[in-house]
Amino acid sequence: MSSTPVIYSTAHLAHEGLIELQDGVVMPCYEMPQRAIAIRQALKAEGTYRFATPLEHGLDPILAVHDVELVRLLEHVWADAVEAGVTHGTRALIPDTFRTAAYVHGQASSQLPDSGPARLGAFCFDTATPIVAGTYEAARAAVDVALTTAERVLAGDRLAYGICRPPGHHAGRSLFGGYCFFNNAAIVAQRLVEGGASRVAILDLDYHHGNGTQQIFWERGDVLYVSLHADPRRAYPYFSGHAAEKGSGAGAGTTANFPLAARTDVEGYAAALDDALRRIADFAPDAPLVLSLGFDTFERDPIGDLALRTADYARLARMVGGLGLPVVALQEGGYAIDAIGANAVSFLNALRDALPATAGKT
Amino acid sequence: MSSTPVIYSTAHLAHEGLIELQDGVVMPCYEMPQRAIAIRQALKAEGTYRFATPLEHGLDPILAVHDVELVRLLEHVWADAVEAGVTHGTRALIPDTFRTAAYVHGQASSQLPDSGPARLGAFCFDTATPIVAGTYEAARAAVDVALTTAERVLAGDRLAYGICRPPGHHAGRSLFGGYCFFNNAAIVAQRLVEGGASRVAILDLDYHHGNGTQQIFWERGDVLYVSLHADPRRAYPYFSGHAAEKGSGAGAGTTANFPLAARTDVEGYAAALDDALRRIADFAPDAPLVLSLGFDTFERDPIGDLALRTADYARLARMVGGLGLPVVALQEGGYAIDAIGANAVSFLNALRDALPATAGKT
Repeated sequence: MSSTPVIYSTAHLAHEGLIELQDGVVMPCYEMPQRAIAIRQALKAEGTYRFATPLEHGLDPILAVHDVELVRLLEHVWADAVEAGVTHGTRALIPDTFRTAAYVHGQASSQLPDSGPARLGAFCFDTATPIVAGTYEAARAAVDVALTTAERVLAGDRLAYGICRPPGHHAGRSLFGGYCFFNNAAIVAQRLVEGGASRVAILDLDYHHGNGTQQIFWERGDVLYVSLHADPRRAYPYFSGHAAEKGSGAGAGTTANFPLAARTDVEGYAAALDDALRRIADFAPDAPLVLSLGFDTFERDPIGDLALRTADYARLARMVGGLGLPVVALQEGGYAIDAIGANAVSFLNALRDALPATAGKT
Repeated sequence: MSSTPVIYSTAHLAHEGLIELQDGVVMPCYEMPQRAIAIRQALKAEGTYRFATPLEHGLDPILAVHDVELVRLLEHVWADAVEAGVTHGTRALIPDTFRTAAYVHGQASSQLPDSGPARLGAFCFDTATPIVAGTYEAARAAVDVALTTAERVLAGDRLAYGICRPPGHHAGRSLFGGYCFFNNAAIVAQRLVEGGASRVAILDLDYHHGNGTQQIFWERGDVLYVSLHADPRRAYPYFSGHAAEKGSGAGAGTTANFPLAARTDVEGYAAALDDALRRIADFAPDAPLVLSLGFDTFERDPIGDLALRTADYARLARMVGGLGLPVVALQEGGYAIDAIGANAVSFLNALRDALPATAGKT
């Protein structure tokens, strides 16, 4: 058994010093550099993972799923704010006014502020996704991590894992939020389609609904999006992820949501995952599985309320491996810093062991 | 010359202890009880204003312009939050996740969280509009103040003034924000229509665009909305208020926006007001003028950037009086506490003097 590739970039370290606002309270951002550092250390200690840095892929893969206005905004907003003197030193940019659906309803204007923090409120949907000097480069690097991870699988590895930070699944076409800026998993799925695949499946095991991924492929019949997540009636991001959402147009039936009750444990989770995997098997992907992998389903996650334990991730990973598809695993959420490394090892070791040798090309 | 009625309720005093979040920084809310207290004291000292408390008008006038879901949310969200233990004592409720247009674009779900702060993010559009225990009663009382003010004018006073707090013009059909919960001016305008008027004009002189008022009457030909305000390309609420926005359907041409450059002084302001008043005169209202009166156009306003001085308000008021319409003046913004009383006296004294005696019925 060869070692499993892990793609990691240090660019994420500059996306730090972050705060977020929850219900009007300022607090350190749960999405912090220590998350990726802890995962990397745990996999290093395991000894059976080989680390590599990402290749640069440029903007084209990003522009294949995101509007250019979003990309340009994220590229320039920090420098613009510094120039305009509105950053108050080094603190993070967080919008305070949002272009909501209820605001624009029945009003014709789509004109936006040209630049600056006010423009953020047309693209961002929460107060938890701060922008600092290093954010854009980190988000770009996370995309490169994801694409490089996919290339390892296309080159023959049965499993490759990208420690994407910032994560991606809340980022939509012209939308960022939920700690996410560019949708790493969606960019990989789109790249697989452009590489010739006719049916690509994305499995999202993060605690939160991947509203961005769902949106990007909502009307696409060639990309199946299947997500297990906390019921949006109680959990972030609140405004999508219900079971009734199934896609539309050419994408009717290629979105599948499995909302979960609070305190769902491995039995309940495995039952939903079984249904989800059947959906993927029925779709018959002709490309590697894109896995949005969050560990905020962990029983002690500070912003989750599910009840998975470290050993449970191995069981769930074996189920995923049972699909027989090679896997492009991309890190999403997970905020229990002291456990995230062990959880990643539990999942990835078991997934690697479960993947049939025939799945890869080597 | 008889004294001018001023309607005031102490219910606003319980809408206090407020914070707001600007660009990720927590600060005391600019919209504070001292605003209304200072205005009342200045008018009391003037000696030519007679004070009265509002009559209760119930929910029907509110439901004539707002969706019932908004009303119910504002009525219950604080108690729900207390019950759910999410208020952290007495601090204000401020949403952290917003149902933005870019989020819901291309996704079918309109299901919302049943209750609690998460539901706020579908109705509120900023982090500056905190809810505390006394907010709903204060907002209800502000509506009663506005309606009672209108009734004084309908009963024959040429001018009546309502010290509405919280203000109203940012509140839309299913929308609150910008320190506003119910749209006091829109509720009055609608009441005038229901009372038999066929053409009602609202003049909005607040520093900020009254996006809520515009939205409510966007497709209405019987209510003209005319607003002078800071250009939304630089100023809150950012996503409406451009000159190109003119209404649609039956309301095509009955919205008129006059965005103003930073540091606009009384000369520039008066030039725009002259155009605005001509629009109103051409519309030929058959009801009192509804005046959304903000003093955040003042040169030292902490959140404005225009350059009006206290004496300037008298000049502008004389221009408004030149319309020859009786005036229902309703307080909107204005955050320079030390000057807001003098500014109100300057404006109201001059407006009263300018109104022709024939405008009223007595």
